[in-house]
Amino acid sequence: MRPTSSTTDDNLFPRAVYIERRERLKARVPSGLMLLPGNDESPMNYAANPYPFRQDSTFLYYFGLDQPGLTAVIDLDEGTERLFGNDPTEDDLVWTGPQPPLSNRAQEVGIARTAPADALEQVVNQAAQQGRTIHLLPQYRPENVLRLRIQEPSVELIKAVIQQRSVKSAEEIEQIEAALAVSREMHTTAMRMARPGVAEQHIAGAMEGIAVARGVRLAFPTIFSKRGEILHNPTCRNTLKAGDIVVNDSGAESPLHYASDVSRTIPVAGRFSQQQKEIYSIVLQAQAKAIAATKPGIEWREVHRLASVTLMEGLKALGLTRGDPAEAVAAGAHTLFFPCGVGHMMGLDVHDMEALGEEYVGYTDAVRRNPEFGWRSLRLGKAVEPGFVITVEPGIYFMPHLIDRWKAERKCERFIDYSRLEAWRNFGGLRVEDDIVVTEAGCRILGPPIAKSIDEVEALASA
Amino acid sequence: MRPTSSTTDDNLFPRAVYIERRERLKARVPSGLMLLPGNDESPMNYAANPYPFRQDSTFLYYFGLDQPGLTAVIDLDEGTERLFGNDPTEDDLVWTGPQPPLSNRAQEVGIARTAPADALEQVVNQAAQQGRTIHLLPQYRPENVLRLRIQEPSVELIKAVIQQRSVKSAEEIEQIEAALAVSREMHTTAMRMARPGVAEQHIAGAMEGIAVARGVRLAFPTIFSKRGEILHNPTCRNTLKAGDIVVNDSGAESPLHYASDVSRTIPVAGRFSQQQKEIYSIVLQAQAKAIAATKPGIEWREVHRLASVTLMEGLKALGLTRGDPAEAVAAGAHTLFFPCGVGHMMGLDVHDMEALGEEYVGYTDAVRRNPEFGWRSLRLGKAVEPGFVITVEPGIYFMPHLIDRWKAERKCERFIDYSRLEAWRNFGGLRVEDDIVVTEAGCRILGPPIAKSIDEVEALASA
Repeated sequence: MRPTSSTTDDNLFPRAVYIERRERLKARVPSGLMLLPGNDESPMNYAANPYPFRQDSTFLYYFGLDQPGLTAVIDLDEGTERLFGNDPTEDDLVWTGPQPPLSNRAQEVGIARTAPADALEQVVNQAAQQGRTIHLLPQYRPENVLRLRIQEPSVELIKAVIQQRSVKSAEEIEQIEAALAVSREMHTTAMRMARPGVAEQHIAGAMEGIAVARGVRLAFPTIFSKRGEILHNPTCRNTLKAGDIVVNDSGAESPLHYASDVSRTIPVAGRFSQQQKEIYSIVLQAQAKAIAATKPGIEWREVHRLASVTLMEGLKALGLTRGDPAEAVAAGAHTLFFPCGVGHMMGLDVHDMEALGEEYVGYTDAVRRNPEFGWRSLRLGKAVEPGFVITVEPGIYFMPHLIDRWKAERKCERFIDYSRLEAWRNFGGLRVEDDIVVTEAGCRILGPPIAKSIDEVEALASA
Repeated sequence: MRPTSSTTDDNLFPRAVYIERRERLKARVPSGLMLLPGNDESPMNYAANPYPFRQDSTFLYYFGLDQPGLTAVIDLDEGTERLFGNDPTEDDLVWTGPQPPLSNRAQEVGIARTAPADALEQVVNQAAQQGRTIHLLPQYRPENVLRLRIQEPSVELIKAVIQQRSVKSAEEIEQIEAALAVSREMHTTAMRMARPGVAEQHIAGAMEGIAVARGVRLAFPTIFSKRGEILHNPTCRNTLKAGDIVVNDSGAESPLHYASDVSRTIPVAGRFSQQQKEIYSIVLQAQAKAIAATKPGIEWREVHRLASVTLMEGLKALGLTRGDPAEAVAAGAHTLFFPCGVGHMMGLDVHDMEALGEEYVGYTDAVRRNPEFGWRSLRLGKAVEPGFVITVEPGIYFMPHLIDRWKAERKCERFIDYSRLEAWRNFGGLRVEDDIVVTEAGCRILGPPIAKSIDEVEALASA
């Protein structure tokens, strides 16, 4: 074998979608040259053995073409759009079969002009010499950092792209729901497979196989772990046993690379224990509270606060915390159990537009990120708008090392009963997560329903 | 969810293996500073959403540690070995749970000294200022090209590493055979699943799921295609139908990242047609010929020639070619049907050590790569030695566009009957591939047997 170059067999939205997206972008950035690089192959262990190709999300958004080695230039003053890239070579004919020339592919997304990849440098240099503004987004791929040795990213362009990509159109929602249909199959399969004696990686493998079998890839590395209190445990090296609960946080891409991101917690023996039911119910209530509160104009940091208060109300009812739950949250006591954010934007990226800078995606000049522990992990704080797609993922985690540290520091002692907490220190952790779209009236959970209530999950986990 | 950083839960060979490998390397490179960078995470669509981490193969070979952000420095004059990298942070505790400090991990592979990652630059700069030789291998990862802005790679180091990595030890063979056990399961599953109406990607997904379920990843992107004549068709977008044959060229990694690489060709209806049997039999004969000829000292380009002659003998018997098969091969006529190489080295990389330069891996000053079409795709030409692991993968491909071009040019008309070829132009293509190790006496096919004869394959494909 000789490893492969990527497919050029694209799925695309209708051409008009890309043209319209670019028109709206151009209307927001008055002058200069926009330089929008696509991604190249990412070498795994040598150049010709790459990871599955993933196009840059912003490039996909405006230009759709799902192949490496492309760069788009929009000249705002001339009013031209050009795609730089190379045509298939004679050798490509042998290795990958006949492929259309770049100009044909460009036309599919409404771009009339193409040029060879190596013509780009001169265009950029000339613009720079003329003192024109070159609008570039932040670069996260080292190959593009190497290739485009250019100045600071353009805040003007960053803001324009984020404003546009934040509001999902009907066809984008359709893609996200297609990804969620794969998620449903992955989660349902996992619930049926999670039995004592089964290795975590066995189920993670089955889920990844489902995505590939649908012609797509995972949107992010699967977390499938009975050590739910370790927020990112990608190793999947444990074996399940009766009494365990296992967190399944996983997602697939749609054919056009939109993400899904869903978490469920599964009782391995088929039934939750009483303790597990209690924590699970609190988390479900916090999620319901967050979803009920979400509507245009509400600040997402307020949704996070509301969910946190609900978590603290539940923990108080169990005797683990005390005092007024809202005051406890104001004091940060909830971050011992919930040190992460209640949700983040989702779209072409699972953390949507994270590469463009979270200070622009999730915050504004007026609504700034809170630097405190816990709060600083909240990726979205600003007011939400119709068309925003957001994950809602409260959880409760008992991290022994964190409990020990807080206890030693007598942190938030007014709100936390450390002696009662001892009986729970090895509980682990759990999370429940769905993806919602903000509507004019409130919000809607996206995708086909995936078993979530205690009864629904137990029914599948013991089937 | 917040995507994950990589595991630090390594599998390792015994410490003595790494110490001994480094001692042998140091014995071959007398002086200077060896700078051996490991890989960093490869961002997919933003920095925090990486592909599954793959350590650099040479770093794995000498240092074993399977985590990002490490660089090893061997000072040949001082006689010291140091590992540069950062300890887990306080935040890592929350996100990934308690992790051992770097010094503990370094000790597992026999390295006594560690230092923070940012201390590396000064060490390298100082050595450069002192005019010392800094031995660096060729860099294929853009992040390392960016990070290590250093001179030319060291040919001395390249040759020393290749000499050492080319000869596989018993524990390396064991790893390759572990990867082949996964291959067997993938191939057997595919043979059972390949039925009319099934999408190629459905079977490719099932195979990838098998690898992940065993705790490993694919060694390279799977080729599973009924368009076998397209040598690298990674799209898997076709649906199988009765009468098709489908090429399955796939491989997994072992727990320590050694590769497997096996190809089989499956009749979708459960039985090969007469035409398919004829081509398949020729390819099997060519593979048997190549394997029978392989022994220490034979040049692999001669094995390639012998396999090519066998292919031409078979095609002559079918009336598609004419004249003396050996003369036909000397004239390059076989490259119309077999434009690639009969095999390549395999080990920690599926194309072993390709990142170090194929002119050193597969050729010598005396045995140089033949630049002619077909021959230039042969990655290994030099004499083989005991311990070399090599793929043996002859195939016959009918590429309509290539046939048309050759016919128009009347190329090799003395040896090719273009009029008879017309009836075969839509045959497609097929390949059979196993992995062998060269022994003192000859060679041995590695791994558990995977159905290969017409009867064996038909039995599984119709089961």
